[in-house]
Amino acid sequence: MNIRCLIDKTIKNQKPELVLKNGKIVNVFTHEIIDKDIAIHNGMIIGIGQYDGEQNIDLDGKYVAPGLIDAHVHIESSMLSPQEFSKAIVPRGTTTIIADPHEIGNVCGLDGIEYILDSTEDLALDTYIMLPSCVPATNFENSGAVLKAQDLEKFINHPRVLGLGELMNYPGVINKDSDVLDKLELTYRNDKIVDGHAPGVCGEGLNAYILSGVSTDHECSAKEEMLEKLRLGMNVLVREGSAAKDLKNLIQGLTVYNSHRVMFCTDDKHPEDLLKDGHIDYNVRLAIENGVDPITAIQMATINPATCYNLKRVGAIAPGYKANIIVFDNLKDFNIEEVYKDGKLVAKDKTALFTTETKKCDKVINTVHLTSISKENIQIDLNKDEVNVIQLQPHSLITKKVMRKVDIKENKFEYTKGSDILKLAVIERHKNTKNVGLGLVENFKLQDGAIATTIAHDSHNIIVVGDNDEDILNAVNEVIKMGGGIAISSSNTILDSLQLKIGGLMSDRDINYVNDKFSNLIDIAYNKLHVNKDIDPFLTLAFLALPVIPDIKLTDKGLFDVVNFDFIEI
Amino acid sequence: MNIRCLIDKTIKNQKPELVLKNGKIVNVFTHEIIDKDIAIHNGMIIGIGQYDGEQNIDLDGKYVAPGLIDAHVHIESSMLSPQEFSKAIVPRGTTTIIADPHEIGNVCGLDGIEYILDSTEDLALDTYIMLPSCVPATNFENSGAVLKAQDLEKFINHPRVLGLGELMNYPGVINKDSDVLDKLELTYRNDKIVDGHAPGVCGEGLNAYILSGVSTDHECSAKEEMLEKLRLGMNVLVREGSAAKDLKNLIQGLTVYNSHRVMFCTDDKHPEDLLKDGHIDYNVRLAIENGVDPITAIQMATINPATCYNLKRVGAIAPGYKANIIVFDNLKDFNIEEVYKDGKLVAKDKTALFTTETKKCDKVINTVHLTSISKENIQIDLNKDEVNVIQLQPHSLITKKVMRKVDIKENKFEYTKGSDILKLAVIERHKNTKNVGLGLVENFKLQDGAIATTIAHDSHNIIVVGDNDEDILNAVNEVIKMGGGIAISSSNTILDSLQLKIGGLMSDRDINYVNDKFSNLIDIAYNKLHVNKDIDPFLTLAFLALPVIPDIKLTDKGLFDVVNFDFIEI
Repeated sequence: MNIRCLIDKTIKNQKPELVLKNGKIVNVFTHEIIDKDIAIHNGMIIGIGQYDGEQNIDLDGKYVAPGLIDAHVHIESSMLSPQEFSKAIVPRGTTTIIADPHEIGNVCGLDGIEYILDSTEDLALDTYIMLPSCVPATNFENSGAVLKAQDLEKFINHPRVLGLGELMNYPGVINKDSDVLDKLELTYRNDKIVDGHAPGVCGEGLNAYILSGVSTDHECSAKEEMLEKLRLGMNVLVREGSAAKDLKNLIQGLTVYNSHRVMFCTDDKHPEDLLKDGHIDYNVRLAIENGVDPITAIQMATINPATCYNLKRVGAIAPGYKANIIVFDNLKDFNIEEVYKDGKLVAKDKTALFTTETKKCDKVINTVHLTSISKENIQIDLNKDEVNVIQLQPHSLITKKVMRKVDIKENKFEYTKGSDILKLAVIERHKNTKNVGLGLVENFKLQDGAIATTIAHDSHNIIVVGDNDEDILNAVNEVIKMGGGIAISSSNTILDSLQLKIGGLMSDRDINYVNDKFSNLIDIAYNKLHVNKDIDPFLTLAFLALPVIPDIKLTDKGLFDVVNFDFIEI
Repeated sequence: MNIRCLIDKTIKNQKPELVLKNGKIVNVFTHEIIDKDIAIHNGMIIGIGQYDGEQNIDLDGKYVAPGLIDAHVHIESSMLSPQEFSKAIVPRGTTTIIADPHEIGNVCGLDGIEYILDSTEDLALDTYIMLPSCVPATNFENSGAVLKAQDLEKFINHPRVLGLGELMNYPGVINKDSDVLDKLELTYRNDKIVDGHAPGVCGEGLNAYILSGVSTDHECSAKEEMLEKLRLGMNVLVREGSAAKDLKNLIQGLTVYNSHRVMFCTDDKHPEDLLKDGHIDYNVRLAIENGVDPITAIQMATINPATCYNLKRVGAIAPGYKANIIVFDNLKDFNIEEVYKDGKLVAKDKTALFTTETKKCDKVINTVHLTSISKENIQIDLNKDEVNVIQLQPHSLITKKVMRKVDIKENKFEYTKGSDILKLAVIERHKNTKNVGLGLVENFKLQDGAIATTIAHDSHNIIVVGDNDEDILNAVNEVIKMGGGIAISSSNTILDSLQLKIGGLMSDRDINYVNDKFSNLIDIAYNKLHVNKDIDPFLTLAFLALPVIPDIKLTDKGLFDVVNFDFIEI
């Protein structure tokens, strides 16, 4: 900041570039509405009072608040590049995000983190990064990378790195796992923050987790859980995303005394929801709709995360702060009409006024490192006809382990026409290990086809489900050919596909293209392949590969019993 | 922090050293009272819940809060060494201070700062330092040191240095004074904080001051002033010390929404007040007495300053925080009965249970660098009998410039028996420049004697007032002989004196000794020398040397007209 050049404008020796007049400023420090001018110069707010600028804009009594902050988000969940993501969310009022590149980290390791850092360097969206703490998520799968403390050291002092991302390995803390503690110590040594991830953890376990230095949590789902965490000193992130919707429960626990330690995040949000509802503005709106004081809701999206993460110069409208400003209609509808970023009007009527190109980066494309698979790779050897099957539950990522009788031919699993027992495969795709984990799944209810995708948490191998080998092979080979993405095959024909060039997770196209394609894939899944409407075809499939959600999952290393935490035979 | 060794105690695999049971914990995060055990190990709070320790202490339903924090204090004003200061304030519940060694910095420069840092290294009082920003206070005087940005750089990254101390030079900011801006830039470059000092500054000037990066202010005296500063993003320190008493005014502006950005400080507190009223506990008590919610008042003395100054691990009772804990009777009287520091009981019933020795440091003693003065040094040459006289105002540090007729003998000022026009001298004592500033003062009303002291803001030269040259010389020479301190002479006899060995500012004796001596000196001043009871003999004298308080002051360089900001003739 060049103080010298700004002071003259503040004390009116010279005119500032821009003055916003006649706005009602939401003062997030004092919880008041203030009728004053905002003087802006060189992208910075330099004065609040009565000012006259080179340019004066009359806000005509509209409300003005600081740009919004998403305190925890995985950009990858949008299936958009950081550039396209910024075009989607800045018009909704978000000017700062704290992103955890956990997914691309699992695929590309440090290269993935570097790609996100590089891609967000000059965005109209201030992007801070938490370094992914759990790559790979478990030792029961092959991911694209293994990130140890000494690896993360490379980025820990990057000016936009705030610390260590959500520490999912709660047992690792309790058991004093060296890998986990090394990462914590690296973070503290560099005076950084550790984000938590502790759904349902309470009592002495929570005390130990907090003692280890974790200072936030975004996994509360009940009011009492939130209150216990707040009492023990955590900052709580109220999440409202595409999958997890915690806001309505958690705001029941808000008080005028604790709200300044509570903030908003989306965690994961899909294109459809971004287009339909918006981003953090939706959290604010939903909170207001459900009875939260509007200024308090705005504080939770601005100064609260800025304070929690020690972000200087964002989250408020005051001298010395970046001129990241939203203009909106009223405190009830919170309809954001204009967005200023660093003093420039960057969005109007929910449309970005800026352009930005998805950065080309060789290190994060072509991440599917196997040429093709053949029928032999996906045969399930069986020496008994009573087998373990993964049973899906409606509207849940939790599965049940059930025994089912299946047909066998030449000691191999044989499809039964009209049966709901489908073949599931996780095919290692990072290092060409030729690992294929095979299993059987019930309640997916797919017919005459297969769905394959490289979005398969958290290692993002290829996961495929189908009722015949031809379509399974066809869908997988289409995904391989695209270098990552989603494909649906029926009668050995690709019905549609979405290329996810970047790490097999993100498209290089814009949100409308991605949403149209993805919507069409969902439509095909439900209406042509008759997938069970009580499950989300892609989300359910993606989480069938994550061996930390009970009861039974599949990785590239085989069928995994999450309850007994060990592999089992089919 | 060794996480590994503590986790086992938290999850109860092993017993923690100490558990405080049956206390009512003031939860400063959520503004609640919580009935739970506090488990402590290795000086740290490791769990809040139900615990069993090697030692269990029953608190019998008493209240428990975090140790208190003084957000801004000059230790030197207590006239005590840091060690003796800690013995005086820790029993009153203060376990953390943010000290600005501005006074000793003016006398000893970097050596003075180093002395304070070294002396506070192992105290039962966590001591953070703000580096003095204005040494010397002005260019119109000779101080013991000049501290530029490049000098301060030596300590800016000391682990207990938080930033730059109160930036009094507000005009320096507005005028883009290089010296000031260099210090600001040094501070930001190292990601540190700048404390403000902006009494009455408002409007565009305040905007510019805040724009320059100043983030706190402890000089508000009116509610509206506080609210303006809060609205513009400052954190406000509510001061209640020996001289400035702002608390009752400022708490009128507290709201449930802004109080978490407001905290307490003492700034300057004398031994008598420390003994009589206490320290920050007094601010809390006074706030409660005047209607502030008790938990809010405790937050203002704990988590609020900890958050503002980004002090990790102090200011709350929660896992991972230092076991700095006070035990008190009730939320009305706030009578602190026990103080734990790093898990050890260090004070009980307002008495320190620890010993600590004042550190010997050659660099801060023998700071009076002149041998003696003689009659010729203090003669006032006059060629007219109508002269400028400093007129004291009752209960104020502001003076008036008045013209008075005086007696002249051989072109020199001549005392008139029974007149209230006294001789005032400021004698440079740091570098033996032989500078003596001479002036005349009215309303001090001293008779038959002289008072001399090395406490003379901010340069701390020797200042002396008297109605005859013999006592002036005798008092000054006594101060020189002591190597700094306060002395009163009458009829050429020293009636009493207080040696202030450390920088001429601080004694190496304990608070009771210093207070007894100082009380006796006050008693002598009022009752034997008949000093005007509407002024404080020592405070008034000390501030007669500070050329930034209107209207007329005296430095070692001469009589200074503060209104026209220039020297004038007598």
